[in-house]
Amino acid sequence: MKVIDIARQAKEAARKLAYIPTSTKNKALTAMAAALKKEKKRILNENRRDIEQAEQREYKSSFIDRLRLNDKRIEDMVDSLKEVVHLSDPVGSIIKKWRRPNGLEIAKVRVPIGVIAIIYESRPNVTADAAALTLKSGNAVILRGGSEAIYSNLALQTILSDAAASAGIPAGAISMLRTTSHKDVEELLKLSQYIDLVIPRGGENLIKRVISLSNIPVIKHHKGLCHTYVDKGAEYKMAEKIILNAKTQRPGVCNAMETLLIHKDIANGFLPGIGRALMTKGVELRGCHLTCRILSGIKEATKLDWHTEYLDLILSIKIVADLDEAIEHINTYSSGLSEAIVTTNPARAKRFTTEVDSSCVYVNASTRFTDGNQFGLGAEIGISTDKIHARGPMGLEELTSYKYIVRGKGQVRR
Amino acid sequence: MKVIDIARQAKEAARKLAYIPTSTKNKALTAMAAALKKEKKRILNENRRDIEQAEQREYKSSFIDRLRLNDKRIEDMVDSLKEVVHLSDPVGSIIKKWRRPNGLEIAKVRVPIGVIAIIYESRPNVTADAAALTLKSGNAVILRGGSEAIYSNLALQTILSDAAASAGIPAGAISMLRTTSHKDVEELLKLSQYIDLVIPRGGENLIKRVISLSNIPVIKHHKGLCHTYVDKGAEYKMAEKIILNAKTQRPGVCNAMETLLIHKDIANGFLPGIGRALMTKGVELRGCHLTCRILSGIKEATKLDWHTEYLDLILSIKIVADLDEAIEHINTYSSGLSEAIVTTNPARAKRFTTEVDSSCVYVNASTRFTDGNQFGLGAEIGISTDKIHARGPMGLEELTSYKYIVRGKGQVRR
Repeated sequence: MKVIDIARQAKEAARKLAYIPTSTKNKALTAMAAALKKEKKRILNENRRDIEQAEQREYKSSFIDRLRLNDKRIEDMVDSLKEVVHLSDPVGSIIKKWRRPNGLEIAKVRVPIGVIAIIYESRPNVTADAAALTLKSGNAVILRGGSEAIYSNLALQTILSDAAASAGIPAGAISMLRTTSHKDVEELLKLSQYIDLVIPRGGENLIKRVISLSNIPVIKHHKGLCHTYVDKGAEYKMAEKIILNAKTQRPGVCNAMETLLIHKDIANGFLPGIGRALMTKGVELRGCHLTCRILSGIKEATKLDWHTEYLDLILSIKIVADLDEAIEHINTYSSGLSEAIVTTNPARAKRFTTEVDSSCVYVNASTRFTDGNQFGLGAEIGISTDKIHARGPMGLEELTSYKYIVRGKGQVRR
Repeated sequence: MKVIDIARQAKEAARKLAYIPTSTKNKALTAMAAALKKEKKRILNENRRDIEQAEQREYKSSFIDRLRLNDKRIEDMVDSLKEVVHLSDPVGSIIKKWRRPNGLEIAKVRVPIGVIAIIYESRPNVTADAAALTLKSGNAVILRGGSEAIYSNLALQTILSDAAASAGIPAGAISMLRTTSHKDVEELLKLSQYIDLVIPRGGENLIKRVISLSNIPVIKHHKGLCHTYVDKGAEYKMAEKIILNAKTQRPGVCNAMETLLIHKDIANGFLPGIGRALMTKGVELRGCHLTCRILSGIKEATKLDWHTEYLDLILSIKIVADLDEAIEHINTYSSGLSEAIVTTNPARAKRFTTEVDSSCVYVNASTRFTDGNQFGLGAEIGISTDKIHARGPMGLEELTSYKYIVRGKGQVRR
């Protein structure tokens, strides 16, 4: 099937999906979960081909690990699909409703976006998650995974799409670019007449390439360079707990902390303790000039460090003169995802949450909570670092648009 | 000032604008209104230079008319600025607030988008309107008008920006590309590190060019190819009133009707009357094969007609077999802005509003109501034909994004 035909079919499917009942979508999700379970062996066989290819190409073991499926990981996918059944369907819900003086009744109603293309890398479970969330929100999806997972992804998409079709979902609702050709992606990104939104999930290069090639709106899922600022007068114990959690509980994810900012008045009192605690947990510290004076023996941070998302047990530390410098540093270097202040002062907490320009701003809590499930939004398609349409965790509601339905009795404009 | 410096200054201004009090913004809007009034002569002088240039270049008189300012048009701009003072400030309002089982308090709070670039053509009043709406919603704006209005726009921007500054608005909040160079626009559209959103307002070529050049999210304000469908069993009188209004009350605007669809069962009964009424109003009719049999002597519509936004006293008419064909025609040819059904049947009204994929869908009312003021949203920056971020009339709320403010007592993630 040609790329344009895939897109055209997806658009046709989207038209029907827009008003398909919730019960049909849930039936399909249940069938999809059952099919994955049933076809476990086939999926594992196809995944083995990807793994062999990756080993031949001598990819890093962490990369191969992300690629690998096993019984447990397939069970997790099955569970995720079942969970989406229980999320409430956003389509058709009334956002607002009002009546105009001329008697017109206006309702702002949630509708699906239409056709969403998702371009992603490595983990094959994204195939199942993305298919489930787009389907539940009434959208057709065109998936495009990385070439490293092509066999796994093709198997998953075929199984999911067939199961959905058997439950009454129109053909083309869950589709995939079935080659690893870059030209196909380029062609896809120009088809704004059929595709309404592109979501790239992956590294910086992938995102840049998508933005520069696409004629279709893009919602970026960028990196997470997150900060924690410890204010003067903060409770040391609370600060320590939050910092250790934000840095070490899962350092490889986007909402982990990368840079710690500390008010100069508490540097001498607070830094030695937290420094020891972090080093005990195996964290490499890189400090500003002043930090290095207090924590002797640690590496000095360069300007590059303030720009770096380590995704690892490394932390840059900077002592700041005041809240203004902390906010300025964050607004300069942050990726705009998730920042925290630890403070006992309500006025400064207010200033921090108001002036820091990030999707999620915390007072006395860990940046690690930036997550659809943790927020209670249900499963997420990703975390948007854009300010247009959706910001922060993107759940089902964020996969919808709206329309105005206006009812009259013959009103005309004067 | 170089383009990059304008953008950088706008970003700095946006940071401060994000938390500037409503009262300061209103003071600035009032000062801007007073300044336009005071500087009327200067504005008219500069506008004369644009008009002379346009006349030398032998532009169409309708084009020159749109360009021309006079006392009345400046007074209208002054009034619009004053109206924005009275609109409520969306910034800081809480969209949603909830508490998680772990005690975290999450608030989803409206914030400005940041820096918005608006690229527009011809009418100089857009300069004042865009400056007012972006300021009230806490955004910095970079304006880029057409070369045909450069003198008027520069004068307006200088006056507005100076007045805003005198009321405490940071420098760079209302800025403008001060040349007519295309290169400057190209450079601007790559500055995604400083600019958060681009809104092109103008013809199809302008929009296409912006989309293909921009690395920044774009919200399109496309054309309006609007339809009215008269269902079998509709009240003829109501249908006639709605059709005449949608076609003739102001044919040159995007929410005017361009194509009329009529159910085959009422074609013989309804078409002769409405045909006469439209022709009496000076409307040229272009009908499908069946229409031409009933309304003899009218021009036959070609496929091109179904694709054409006339913006003029011309109407294409098609007889359709049923509601399905009407919906199919609309979803194929519409620009997705504004469509109406005239019907007495609630089930078919429901199907129409559900299945038609347009921003505003009307039951028994004129498509001409698609407008921020008519909807009660206040002044509008334009009407989005996109499904991402904002759809339909864009008022102050649509010029905002949101952030999550999360308050804890030391919570960490497990």
